[in-house]
Amino acid sequence: MRTRSFLACVVAAALAALPAAAETPRGLIRGTGDLGIVIERANGGVVVVDTTTQTRLYAVDQLGDLSHASAVFSRDGRHAYVFGRDGGLSKVDLLRGEVAKRVVQAGNSIGGAISQDGRIVAVANYDPGGVRLFDADTLAPVSEIAARDAGGNRSKVVGLVDAPDDKLVFALYDAGEIWVADIADPARPTVVRHRGVGQLPYDGILSPNGRHYVAGLFGEDGVALLDLWQPGAGVRRILDGYGRGQEPLPVYKMPHLEGWASSGELGFIPAVGRHEVLVVSLTAWTELGRIPLLGQPVFAVARPDGRQVWVNFAHPHNDAVQVIDVPTRSIVATLRPGRAVLHVEFTPRGEQAWLSVRDADRVDVYDTRRLQRIAEISARKPSGIFFTARAGRIGY
Amino acid sequence: MRTRSFLACVVAAALAALPAAAETPRGLIRGTGDLGIVIERANGGVVVVDTTTQTRLYAVDQLGDLSHASAVFSRDGRHAYVFGRDGGLSKVDLLRGEVAKRVVQAGNSIGGAISQDGRIVAVANYDPGGVRLFDADTLAPVSEIAARDAGGNRSKVVGLVDAPDDKLVFALYDAGEIWVADIADPARPTVVRHRGVGQLPYDGILSPNGRHYVAGLFGEDGVALLDLWQPGAGVRRILDGYGRGQEPLPVYKMPHLEGWASSGELGFIPAVGRHEVLVVSLTAWTELGRIPLLGQPVFAVARPDGRQVWVNFAHPHNDAVQVIDVPTRSIVATLRPGRAVLHVEFTPRGEQAWLSVRDADRVDVYDTRRLQRIAEISARKPSGIFFTARAGRIGY
Repeated sequence: MRTRSFLACVVAAALAALPAAAETPRGLIRGTGDLGIVIERANGGVVVVDTTTQTRLYAVDQLGDLSHASAVFSRDGRHAYVFGRDGGLSKVDLLRGEVAKRVVQAGNSIGGAISQDGRIVAVANYDPGGVRLFDADTLAPVSEIAARDAGGNRSKVVGLVDAPDDKLVFALYDAGEIWVADIADPARPTVVRHRGVGQLPYDGILSPNGRHYVAGLFGEDGVALLDLWQPGAGVRRILDGYGRGQEPLPVYKMPHLEGWASSGELGFIPAVGRHEVLVVSLTAWTELGRIPLLGQPVFAVARPDGRQVWVNFAHPHNDAVQVIDVPTRSIVATLRPGRAVLHVEFTPRGEQAWLSVRDADRVDVYDTRRLQRIAEISARKPSGIFFTARAGRIGY
Repeated sequence: MRTRSFLACVVAAALAALPAAAETPRGLIRGTGDLGIVIERANGGVVVVDTTTQTRLYAVDQLGDLSHASAVFSRDGRHAYVFGRDGGLSKVDLLRGEVAKRVVQAGNSIGGAISQDGRIVAVANYDPGGVRLFDADTLAPVSEIAARDAGGNRSKVVGLVDAPDDKLVFALYDAGEIWVADIADPARPTVVRHRGVGQLPYDGILSPNGRHYVAGLFGEDGVALLDLWQPGAGVRRILDGYGRGQEPLPVYKMPHLEGWASSGELGFIPAVGRHEVLVVSLTAWTELGRIPLLGQPVFAVARPDGRQVWVNFAHPHNDAVQVIDVPTRSIVATLRPGRAVLHVEFTPRGEQAWLSVRDADRVDVYDTRRLQRIAEISARKPSGIFFTARAGRIGY
């Protein structure tokens, strides 16, 4: 009994000491280009991190339900906008380490985007289905795009991204449509609808240069492609055989389309339900080949220079990360960080890869040249990792 | 006499009032992702600017000879490293608006780079020829790469860039060589030399993904290309006919290679001495066509999404900027900001283009969608414009 309570005390003391020991003064004058956040999924908070020192700075809590949470950044890199599953939209001040604003804007939401000029934050909602626009400064509501199908029914919205020339692009899950909204006047958005793009688009991604929008289809094989430089040409179907119809294995987890890597002319796309990544031409939009993997991939993320692609996996292989060498299209390393590697984020110039290892309550930092772990950071059930360099990228 | 002294007083008061009226408090807690600097060429200083409010914040002076100056940024975006022509290396604190450190490290220099990990600032020197490495924090000297040819003579160094996996790449003007230095141990750099790449390489650029290094050759037609993914394949000659040998017009100004735009598969390269921009395949490295322009181009810069390319010109056409629409490869606008448009810099997501209009003592900010001027900022003889988003890019 004594031993047990002694152990319990040691554990409790260790847990209590952990954040305090790592605490950093808040509100310092410092640059924001090397900051980021790690979502603490179970805890409903984020940890603010520094990629130069590879350390945690401080925790910011009380952000609601952060299962499946994502984030975008203000154009100055000071604030993160965190999208919770419960419809919560939180504006986190990375320098002061506090919640600057918070609204619960819908009953159920699935990510968001920030407009090209940084003035508007948009949220993709399931309930009620549509996109709501907020002032990025105050989080005051600005307008709503109700995502109604031809019959007038609201649809869940997925795959919401910003695009050049004041655009937002998103897919209507229930309606099978892709919409391009012009929010130059955010109080009165105008929309171009692309109907009949395929059944049950479940996610969407923009190519790094902002030209091509691709939506995965849960309801059928193939993927829907829209060329934003030629919107009049409409949506076309590519990669027949990519979707869910043909897989011989049960699908443990739909791959996130945000994880599609691109490396020059080549895209590396997690196959659905298969132990493979597809190599795709990003000009012809055809499959060029497949690379065998040790499990079902979830994210395939290219190092910013495109020389490597890092892949994580669905259960039961989610303790591993495989690294693909792009020139040879071969696996050059199989890392075993620990149970439930949920996310991979590179520093903007690619020298570090950060991996969240959920079940170890840890984020690992790897040197991407040597493929060695160089630092570890404590975080409670970490999931998504987002660095401020995203503020300067298109399509997040 | 009274009138004259009254006028003189008014002018003096106006000049004195200009910086004071525009002055912003220094040392505020704020993000750095939307900051940048404008080189004040005649004045030996920089103006710190904010791209969100499109305003100048404050001037930082006493940086020496800033003719042909350039800059890179610390990985946190707080500091600019400004490379002067006189060998001066200045570390400017953008938040406090002051010179944090300054060294005069050589007699004559031509730009520099910051290592992938942000720890080392490197300067390309003419006199004595070579590359010197400095601690990015303290500016203390770390090591030197003496750029000696096969006969042991030092060469001027040009086209210095950072590259992935701890590399620096640069060209030896006098020796006709391209060197790739590994600075993982910055005190003891190791070098791979590529000899006989062509006569008088005068500048070099890295492709946006950090894979291809291209050096312009002043001494002959054509351009030298090194694929850093296949260094064993050596340097090859491309674009015969690009160089100086065939131009029927006098060359008023050699185009800056930093200005080569790339847009997906296509590169847009200022022709030397001709009123044209070359359209080049960035996979086959062959010329695909030419677009006629109103004068000799200096910079051709792609909007970050690659949809537009903006071109400025040598004297006597340096009052103009032409905008190329990439899908149609046609000129869609000819802007006339004023005499001596020296530089074009886009905000990282491309909604704004900033142009320095030297003889008007003004920087103009354009909305790139509408091709309209939306703001102007006073600056004394502005030349280069550099935004902190460069901190997250490869090859600057």
